[in-house]
Amino acid sequence: MRILGIDPGCRATGYGLIEAQSRSPRALAWGVIRPRAGDPLPERLAFLFQKLEDLILTLAPQVLALEEVIPERFPRAALSLGQAQGVVLVLAARHGLPVRTYHPSAVKLALTGNGRARKEEVAFMVRATLGLAESLPRDASDALALALTHLYGETRCWPRSAGV
Amino acid sequence: MRILGIDPGCRATGYGLIEAQSRSPRALAWGVIRPRAGDPLPERLAFLFQKLEDLILTLAPQVLALEEVIPERFPRAALSLGQAQGVVLVLAARHGLPVRTYHPSAVKLALTGNGRARKEEVAFMVRATLGLAESLPRDASDALALALTHLYGETRCWPRSAGV
Repeated sequence: MRILGIDPGCRATGYGLIEAQSRSPRALAWGVIRPRAGDPLPERLAFLFQKLEDLILTLAPQVLALEEVIPERFPRAALSLGQAQGVVLVLAARHGLPVRTYHPSAVKLALTGNGRARKEEVAFMVRATLGLAESLPRDASDALALALTHLYGETRCWPRSAGV
Repeated sequence: MRILGIDPGCRATGYGLIEAQSRSPRALAWGVIRPRAGDPLPERLAFLFQKLEDLILTLAPQVLALEEVIPERFPRAALSLGQAQGVVLVLAARHGLPVRTYHPSAVKLALTGNGRARKEEVAFMVRATLGLAESLPRDASDALALALTHLYGETRCWPRSAGV
């Protein structure tokens, strides 16, 4: 199973692809798509559209994992997140990819066993689970966490490599 | 000048194209894009993307006029509107079309002379200005109102045909 986690935003969109053939998931690709900050919003969204489509064609994921947006918390952010999310969802449908969304606390719970874990604990578990020595950009780490959350939900078991 | 007004939404997106070569604007096309209500969100957004792209290619507008979204009023609607707006903005950039947004009260003021006019008054002025006998779907009327607002702002004069 090849799962592409995406953490969309109008300024930066993290992505991370994991593959899980046996019990141990591997991270095959990760990064952050950053449109030029000075560009107008339509150009930034079109840049995101193009880069994400390139990634989908190159990485050939079988499913997309996204964070569930809680609009009541930050209404203005909800509009902005909605715009970036709209781009992701259009591409998912155009490429026949199912989309699964996960509440932030579900990601924390899946990665650390604690639905209220701090960001750093989640990031630590992403690196530990995937055996990554380097520290990752936050948006990429969040995207990999989403992909792992989907994997755990599908396989209903923790990977041995996670050491938990 | 060919102006395409768009009133985007995940359930229904109104559109209206006006052309103004002399002082009298004419409505060349209007309607509502309605994805199937039972379809999942990504499919509905992809449907909107495809239909809007078809319209842009067919109608060849020179500018898009959108409503400014006020996210604080309805946070959950802001997310949903953001998703549909993201689709419109990506298409605008991909087709090299400038986008102008207008506050709801600016549309009311431009059409009726009263920034707090009721919806029905705006709809009446859309029909009167464009010489349309028939009553229009609300979303299409709102889209034509946006296109007219842009026209008035660009030409800085009211059209004679408006009778105001």
